[in-house]
Amino acid sequence: MDKPSLPKGTRDFGPATMAKRQFILENIRAIFRKYGFMPLETPAMENLSTLTGKYGEEGDQLLFRILNSGDYLKDVDQSTLDSKNSKQLASDITEKGLRYDLTVPFARYVVMNRHEITLPFKRYQIQPVWRADRPQKGRYREFYQCDADVVGTDSLICEAEILLMIKEAFLKLGIKDYTIKINHRSVLSGLAEITGLKDNETTLFVAIDKLDKIGESGVRQELEQKGVSKENIDVVFNVLNADNKASMLGGSEQAKKGLNDLDETFRLLDGYGVSRDHVEFDIKLARGLSYYTGCIFEVQINNVAIGSVSGGGRYDNLTQAFGSKEKLSGVGISFGIDRIYDAMEELQVFPGNTEVSSQVLVCHFDENAMQYGLKILHTLRQNSIASEIYPDITKKINKQLEYADKKMIPFTIMIGEDEIKSGLLTLKNMRSGEQLKKSLEDIVKLVKSPS
Amino acid sequence: MDKPSLPKGTRDFGPATMAKRQFILENIRAIFRKYGFMPLETPAMENLSTLTGKYGEEGDQLLFRILNSGDYLKDVDQSTLDSKNSKQLASDITEKGLRYDLTVPFARYVVMNRHEITLPFKRYQIQPVWRADRPQKGRYREFYQCDADVVGTDSLICEAEILLMIKEAFLKLGIKDYTIKINHRSVLSGLAEITGLKDNETTLFVAIDKLDKIGESGVRQELEQKGVSKENIDVVFNVLNADNKASMLGGSEQAKKGLNDLDETFRLLDGYGVSRDHVEFDIKLARGLSYYTGCIFEVQINNVAIGSVSGGGRYDNLTQAFGSKEKLSGVGISFGIDRIYDAMEELQVFPGNTEVSSQVLVCHFDENAMQYGLKILHTLRQNSIASEIYPDITKKINKQLEYADKKMIPFTIMIGEDEIKSGLLTLKNMRSGEQLKKSLEDIVKLVKSPS
Repeated sequence: MDKPSLPKGTRDFGPATMAKRQFILENIRAIFRKYGFMPLETPAMENLSTLTGKYGEEGDQLLFRILNSGDYLKDVDQSTLDSKNSKQLASDITEKGLRYDLTVPFARYVVMNRHEITLPFKRYQIQPVWRADRPQKGRYREFYQCDADVVGTDSLICEAEILLMIKEAFLKLGIKDYTIKINHRSVLSGLAEITGLKDNETTLFVAIDKLDKIGESGVRQELEQKGVSKENIDVVFNVLNADNKASMLGGSEQAKKGLNDLDETFRLLDGYGVSRDHVEFDIKLARGLSYYTGCIFEVQINNVAIGSVSGGGRYDNLTQAFGSKEKLSGVGISFGIDRIYDAMEELQVFPGNTEVSSQVLVCHFDENAMQYGLKILHTLRQNSIASEIYPDITKKINKQLEYADKKMIPFTIMIGEDEIKSGLLTLKNMRSGEQLKKSLEDIVKLVKSPS
Repeated sequence: MDKPSLPKGTRDFGPATMAKRQFILENIRAIFRKYGFMPLETPAMENLSTLTGKYGEEGDQLLFRILNSGDYLKDVDQSTLDSKNSKQLASDITEKGLRYDLTVPFARYVVMNRHEITLPFKRYQIQPVWRADRPQKGRYREFYQCDADVVGTDSLICEAEILLMIKEAFLKLGIKDYTIKINHRSVLSGLAEITGLKDNETTLFVAIDKLDKIGESGVRQELEQKGVSKENIDVVFNVLNADNKASMLGGSEQAKKGLNDLDETFRLLDGYGVSRDHVEFDIKLARGLSYYTGCIFEVQINNVAIGSVSGGGRYDNLTQAFGSKEKLSGVGISFGIDRIYDAMEELQVFPGNTEVSSQVLVCHFDENAMQYGLKILHTLRQNSIASEIYPDITKKINKQLEYADKKMIPFTIMIGEDEIKSGLLTLKNMRSGEQLKKSLEDIVKLVKSPS
């Protein structure tokens, strides 16, 4: 028999990793709740008609498709089979796929439940997504997304609150050196307009998005290759390198609208009494841009080579993709839990107490002591102390202590004849090695609030 | 454009449903933690080599298979395509499937990580599973399992603690009228032995498992059809209908071993100081039985037509299916969250306060008041009060109150010129309709502990 293995790009999360992941997720979930977002979960499988065409051609290629059940070949044309065309056959033998992100299922949910939903609708969603990407460091085929979106209002208060939530999240997680980059789709369009690239917007945005990676010369080269004139490229970089970008973009009404939105968002931040620290306008920030129509965000942890760990923005037309005639404006943020986890490991900022083990292990010298220990154990649990008893009868107390040690259980209670007679139990602090004789009542107090 | 829809047998969980599901899950999770179980998560996708052959032929048919990526037909023989054999082609074009339960991935994890694991290993796992079953009331294609297993000990303390956890879970969930049925694989084997059906065990177990559904005459008929003699059938029912089954089974060493285990489990329960209420020996309980080797459990909520809501048992050979030479005994329990949810709805036992909405909505009469409200809102949140501001500027305060009402937000703070001048805010209790003028400090106190 072959040794069992995992599909590539997927992972198990054992107890120690789970504890740290739960630390991240619970903190972010608590913030979402505090800001008035309500939970939603959607199925792992969606109809392919829901998923395809929403993520561009490349995205469609990365969807995991689920083979139809039963005799799925029954109604397939022999000619399709003969052609050996994988793509064509796929559409005949699959009708469901795995969720690729949480935004499209959210839009689908809003359209399907439009009449029961009160606008503005604020939802959060924390679930895995799947992409048939080539796995590499920091990129997995199954990973969690952790999203909050508001739909049904164009108020910039939502943008300001996204900034507040990001700031609060990183404070809670203990990540101190990070930058929230903010830009606006209209600013980018304005840049394209005044540099004569109005019909070449995407070319421009894709190129300048790479500035950090390939530098000015690389971007100039890419734009030239795409047929942009040297003159226009110069104008682009005059703006990008200018100190006062606002005045240089003043000629474009579009850009002005975007800059006003950004100013207003900053002003709202002041209104909450929260500083602008960590938040930076970055005209180079473009993000996929496929569906963003207003502000766009991206968060980078500085001095960690891990890419962006969070991002989002405003979109106006998501529900229209599902035939909704109503134009619902929305804005959202997505936290990349897996990358945040990796960054926190690298920065060593996980608190020491994320462990998930029991607080107490009840140990025993013989069967009689074990029986006596059951009642002790039950009392500990009635006092909300996570605890367990070593379940096998063994004379070797060392084996029991070794179990506690390996599982990082901080306290053991040892029970033998003496303890049963006196009612005073032996409590061992597994870190310090200290042993004390205590009543159960005192042990409960001590374990609940160790000094 | 077609209206969007969900794949059949799958569901969205909106905010109200999510709140109730989280109530169930958080209660069970807290109990697992308190009993020393540690969290594990495994990927949604497993290699088909991990999944197939573990759930019987019927189970293999119910696996959702994932189409290989890229040009998956490239290396497929033309003859396979020509045969139009769906089953044969499936094994050529799929190598991954969706998780069918949590037990097999757990066993796979234990084998793959055997050297890092401390035995006995106690893990809990709460994740969805997928089955291509025909959807019907109470049966979905995606549903959550909520499992706790101990592996690496044959101590009956584990069985006793499963009973404790079930009792505590139903107490916490407010379900009062339920029965935990317990039986033992060896008792069933003993029954087969003394009724001359030793080589017909499965026939016997499958038939008596249906007693509740088809009654004694139905079971007799089924056994007859399977070729069991009338004489043997009479012996079976003499035992099943006897008051003192133990003495009737006394002739079988196997049965004695099973009855001893059950007695010992009950005796351990006494040791914890926990009553035997709700727990009943039921010789008819068989459950799939495919891999159980010791005690078996099943929980039914009485007076709710929903089938069993929880079940489990001891198994000895799970890891051997993955080539492990070590024989690891394990025992586990699985809570069926979806059925527990349905039962709790029917019994109307969800507490009233599972709502997930904000506690406070900040309302405003004009732009100035809205700006003033931001600081108020920030202070509420700094005091851990989930709250939000109506994000759009509207003169219509009624629209804002309606929003609070629909979202079941219990308090609103209304801000206008007077409030800004005096610093006393208008707090409205949305349930009673009562309005009070209060300082922000007093409002924080009142909302945090409403009397």
